[in-house]
Amino acid sequence: MTSLTLYTPAGVLAQAQPLKRAAKRLAQLGFEVAIDESALAKHQRFGGDDETRLAALHRIAKASPSVALASRGGYGLTRLLDQINWKQLIKSTERGTRWVGQSDLTSLQLGMLAHAKDGQRPVSWAGPLACDDFGRSEEEGGMDEITQDCFTEAMSGALEAVGFRTEAGFEELGVRGTLWGGNLCVLNSLLGTPHFPKIKGGILFLEDINEHPYRVERSLLQLQQAGVLDAQKAVVLGDFSGWRKSPLDRGYSLKAAIEAVRAATRTPVLTGLPFGHVRTKVCLPVGAKAELYVQGREVLIGWASEHGHDNNHHHDHHDAPGHSHGH
Amino acid sequence: MTSLTLYTPAGVLAQAQPLKRAAKRLAQLGFEVAIDESALAKHQRFGGDDETRLAALHRIAKASPSVALASRGGYGLTRLLDQINWKQLIKSTERGTRWVGQSDLTSLQLGMLAHAKDGQRPVSWAGPLACDDFGRSEEEGGMDEITQDCFTEAMSGALEAVGFRTEAGFEELGVRGTLWGGNLCVLNSLLGTPHFPKIKGGILFLEDINEHPYRVERSLLQLQQAGVLDAQKAVVLGDFSGWRKSPLDRGYSLKAAIEAVRAATRTPVLTGLPFGHVRTKVCLPVGAKAELYVQGREVLIGWASEHGHDNNHHHDHHDAPGHSHGH
Repeated sequence: MTSLTLYTPAGVLAQAQPLKRAAKRLAQLGFEVAIDESALAKHQRFGGDDETRLAALHRIAKASPSVALASRGGYGLTRLLDQINWKQLIKSTERGTRWVGQSDLTSLQLGMLAHAKDGQRPVSWAGPLACDDFGRSEEEGGMDEITQDCFTEAMSGALEAVGFRTEAGFEELGVRGTLWGGNLCVLNSLLGTPHFPKIKGGILFLEDINEHPYRVERSLLQLQQAGVLDAQKAVVLGDFSGWRKSPLDRGYSLKAAIEAVRAATRTPVLTGLPFGHVRTKVCLPVGAKAELYVQGREVLIGWASEHGHDNNHHHDHHDAPGHSHGH
Repeated sequence: MTSLTLYTPAGVLAQAQPLKRAAKRLAQLGFEVAIDESALAKHQRFGGDDETRLAALHRIAKASPSVALASRGGYGLTRLLDQINWKQLIKSTERGTRWVGQSDLTSLQLGMLAHAKDGQRPVSWAGPLACDDFGRSEEEGGMDEITQDCFTEAMSGALEAVGFRTEAGFEELGVRGTLWGGNLCVLNSLLGTPHFPKIKGGILFLEDINEHPYRVERSLLQLQQAGVLDAQKAVVLGDFSGWRKSPLDRGYSLKAAIEAVRAATRTPVLTGLPFGHVRTKVCLPVGAKAELYVQGREVLIGWASEHGHDNNHHHDHHDAPGHSHGH
């Protein structure tokens, strides 16, 4: 059985029910589920005070379960970044722990890359959150099947690629580099700090929620002006939704924002990655060496699976947003 | 007569009326008002396309009026930062041009400091915006008198201090350093880029609008983690309003956010500065050498006025939010 620990590193769980539903569903999927002792702790808007959440991170790193799945994001990891024992977290990944999550978890995942020593490659997984995804009630639409399948496959070590459809204009693009990224706001909140990883020649994926396109544009232009975008081989945009139009937009849109960013960087900026604050989301290994290939409008991001297949051979392509099954 | 040019460097003016009202009021105050030729240009949500707004900046820098007052903020300067002829802008300040504004203008004002050569000290003014302040109709409450008086005094070169009341706990604090700052989101959007000024031992003032306290906290902690807060002599917070409480806050508030920042930095963090997206706002010389003194709960931020007074003598203190008159 694959051991999986649920914990709460950032925002508070207002109710226990979604966590219980998530635990039950994950057990049904065959995981040996444990709930961290402070997963339901409450301090203002946080899942316990800073000491409590920090202790949970270190407790889990020490126990090194196969999977450490965050209950939800929210806000809270920023407060802990300067206190985290990064060596211990990185060590847990070397012992096989897969840290999974998204949103606020971006800072944990990128912090591990930033604090890795030469030769270390602490891979974590951008993917679902326990309550948001596995804890969704039937009235809330229930669990998304693609998200679930992609997660279980990734946690088994078999997932080696995800595929999706992008816009025209990137035909025959093929690049290799470190796959990294996450939530745009959280990623940018690391800029200028020791927790921002210095990755050159990478494949950078980004998503965000409730951010007007002018704010998305401002964040992406900051990355460009900081030298980050031009230093990548490709930028891949996931979901950017939940924002409201303003009467002042006058035709300005997410499309216009992306065009402005494309005009500023020499790096190709692709769209369409099924990732973000949406029901259907893939799992992506943050920090892994990956390849991105485009054939027509089909994009495949592949990496070496843990089952020993190399990732230089031909991958299956998928037309619909979703994931590619291990061979 | 003091020449004053109105221009639109960022967001579009949906209507001409506020600009006309501002021009009329500023003329009544004795300024020789000119409206830049592209002040009413429109491109999507911008006051003209990027080339148009960039040309306006350089045209005004070349003409070097006594005052260059932005019509409004919004979003737009980020797009221009890598193309601005900073040398030309800095030169205009040496010829006496006072660039005035706030919000998105923060990037212009801090960019000048970041691009200044050794020995250059390009001072600009954090202060009102033409349409938001001088263009306010009577139905919108009209012009704020303190804002107006502080502006006219600053533009005459006579303003040498602003005073306000802060919380208990900073009695007898006295520091000197470069006064700098502005809008928190915009300031943070420069982190990691060549447009962020490296100021040590300064007095950093910050404000923001429509940002939930957790976002304010995240931005301030980023500044701390980037080494910026600890490197300052004092941090002074202006207005942070317009945000909405969330059911998940559970007692978390702006006060809790400020407490978290105070726990993270050794630099005193004062509140109460009458500055931000509020009617009553002072003018502050960005980049000037300044002093901050606290007596009881009264804070005075002073600097050398252009009338040759040094700022080591005793200043008048003011109890109410507002500005201190030149001696």
